[in-house]
Amino acid sequence: MRYVSLVFLALLAPVAAGQERPTMSDVLESSSPSDWRQPDPANMLYMELEHGRVVLELAPHFAPGHVANIRQLVGNRYFDGLAIIRSQDNYVVQWGDPNAGAEDARLHENAADSLDPEFFRNAEDLPFAKIESRDAYASEVGFSGGFPAGRDGTKGRAWLIHCYGMLGVGRGTSPDSGSGAELYVVTGHAPRHLDRNVTLVGRVIDGIENLSTLPRGTGALGFFEHVEEHVPIVSVRFGSDLPEAERLQIELLRTDTEIFNQLVEARRYRSEEWFVDPSDAIGICNVPLPSRPSK
Amino acid sequence: MRYVSLVFLALLAPVAAGQERPTMSDVLESSSPSDWRQPDPANMLYMELEHGRVVLELAPHFAPGHVANIRQLVGNRYFDGLAIIRSQDNYVVQWGDPNAGAEDARLHENAADSLDPEFFRNAEDLPFAKIESRDAYASEVGFSGGFPAGRDGTKGRAWLIHCYGMLGVGRGTSPDSGSGAELYVVTGHAPRHLDRNVTLVGRVIDGIENLSTLPRGTGALGFFEHVEEHVPIVSVRFGSDLPEAERLQIELLRTDTEIFNQLVEARRYRSEEWFVDPSDAIGICNVPLPSRPSK
Repeated sequence: MRYVSLVFLALLAPVAAGQERPTMSDVLESSSPSDWRQPDPANMLYMELEHGRVVLELAPHFAPGHVANIRQLVGNRYFDGLAIIRSQDNYVVQWGDPNAGAEDARLHENAADSLDPEFFRNAEDLPFAKIESRDAYASEVGFSGGFPAGRDGTKGRAWLIHCYGMLGVGRGTSPDSGSGAELYVVTGHAPRHLDRNVTLVGRVIDGIENLSTLPRGTGALGFFEHVEEHVPIVSVRFGSDLPEAERLQIELLRTDTEIFNQLVEARRYRSEEWFVDPSDAIGICNVPLPSRPSK
Repeated sequence: MRYVSLVFLALLAPVAAGQERPTMSDVLESSSPSDWRQPDPANMLYMELEHGRVVLELAPHFAPGHVANIRQLVGNRYFDGLAIIRSQDNYVVQWGDPNAGAEDARLHENAADSLDPEFFRNAEDLPFAKIESRDAYASEVGFSGGFPAGRDGTKGRAWLIHCYGMLGVGRGTSPDSGSGAELYVVTGHAPRHLDRNVTLVGRVIDGIENLSTLPRGTGALGFFEHVEEHVPIVSVRFGSDLPEAERLQIELLRTDTEIFNQLVEARRYRSEEWFVDPSDAIGICNVPLPSRPSK
C-alpha cells in the first residue's frame, strides 16, 4: 500500500487498539439488526439524471403539506424533463422549471402553487433524541426520525437543520410562496441562517456526488447562465412507484437508539491514537448518519 | 427575468429597503480602500491544473515552519507533475506524490521530510478579532490576519479553524510526520474535530471550484483507485515567482477593522425582508471572507 494512503488512512480511520472508549467502527460492529431501519419506499424520492441517480428520504413528520404536494407533482410527472438550474459552490444545487414564471412554464395541475410554510412544527409530541452540543443557532439540537433537528424547548418548536445534504423548498419573499416545485440540496457548509426560514423536506441518502460535483454556475448565486449548462432531469419517482428491482437496497442507522448515542459519543470523544488533542466536542452537522446495503 | 431566479435571488440576496440594520451589501459599499488588503505575493500559492487554477494564501504567522518547508518544496518544483489523489465528498481534496513511500517516490531534496507540528501557537501576542459565537469546539473564535481562528484564552493557545477552503498538511499517526508535501483542502462541512490535530497552513482564495467539483474517488476515504483518475498538477508556484501579468489581481477584506465587525453583525442579524425568523446568531465558518478584483 502506498505510504500516502497510509498517512491519510491513519489520519481518518485509525485502528482502535486497547482504548477505553469505542470508536465509531466498534459501535457499528456492535449494532444489531434492530438498530437499523429500511426507509419507507413511499417517502423515498429517486431523481434520475443522465450521469447518475440521487435518492432522497422525505420527512413528512416535519413537512406533511409539502411532502403531499411533492407527491402530487411527482405523480403528474412534473419534474421529468425539467433541469438543475443552479450550482453554487459551498452552498446549494437547485432544480425546477427553467421557465417558471414565464408563459411556457409547466403547470402544477392539481398540485398547489403555494403552501402554508412548514418552517417548524410543534415539539410537544415529537420524538427527539437530544445531543449535548454547544450550538451557535439553536438552544437544543438532536435527531428526530433520522434527521438533524433543532428545538427551542420541549413544548415549543422543532425544525429540521440545514446540514450538508438536506433538501429544501425554494421560496420568494412571501413565506407561503414555496410549493416544492423548486427544490435545493445543501452542498456546502451548513447554511444554518436558513433554519426556520425555509421548509426543509428531507435529505439525500445516496448519490449526493451527482449533485455536489456539478460544475458551478457562473451567473449570480451560481445560476447557470446558458440553457446548455442546464442538467436535464430524466425523471423523479417515489420508491413505491418503482419496481422492486430498481429500488435502492439500503438501511439507515436509527437515531433513537442506544447504539446511536454511542456513535455520537464515539465521534465526540476521539480515542483513536492519531488524535493528540481531541476536542471532546461535536457539532450537530458533524454527526455521521451511517447507511449500509440491505440484504 | 425568470421567476425562478427571482425566487431564489429573493432568498439569497434580497434588496435592503428601509431597514434599521445594514445588510452585507450595505457594509461592503460603505468600505474604504483601507478596509481591503492585497495579499503578499510571497505568501500566495498558485496551483495550475489542466482545467484551471487554484490560488491559496498561506498563513506563516500560524505555521512558519511548514510554510518555509512548502517554500523549499515549491522551489524544488516538487509538486510539478504530481497529482490530486483523493476527493472525498463533504470532506477534503488531497494532493501529493502518488508514489510517496515507494522506491520511486520523489525526493524532498533540501526540504524536510517531517517537521515539528504547528497545531497551535501562543496566543499572547497574536492579533485576534474575537466574534461572539457559541461554538461547539472552541471557547473563543474570531479572525487573525484574514483567517478563522480559535483561542482558549488570551495567554493560551490559538489555532486555525477547519472551515471550508482551508489548507492543511496531511500527516500520519506521529504528530511530526507531516511535511507539507501532502496537502488537503476542506471541501465540505467544517471537520472541526481536526482542529489542533493537524497543521493548517492557509486557505483557498480563488478557484476552489477547480477542487470541489472533482469527481469523487471511489476508493476508501475518497482516494482515486486508478492512476487514470489522478488529476495531474501542472505546476505549483509562489506569486512572487510569477510575472506580474500572471498574478491574480485580488483584494481581500481585512478582518481587523470596524467594517469587518459590521459585516459579521450584518450576517448575524439578517434584516432583509425575506427572513421571517432570523436566528440572530452566526457560526465562525458561516462568516464570509469577501474578495474583489484589485485595480
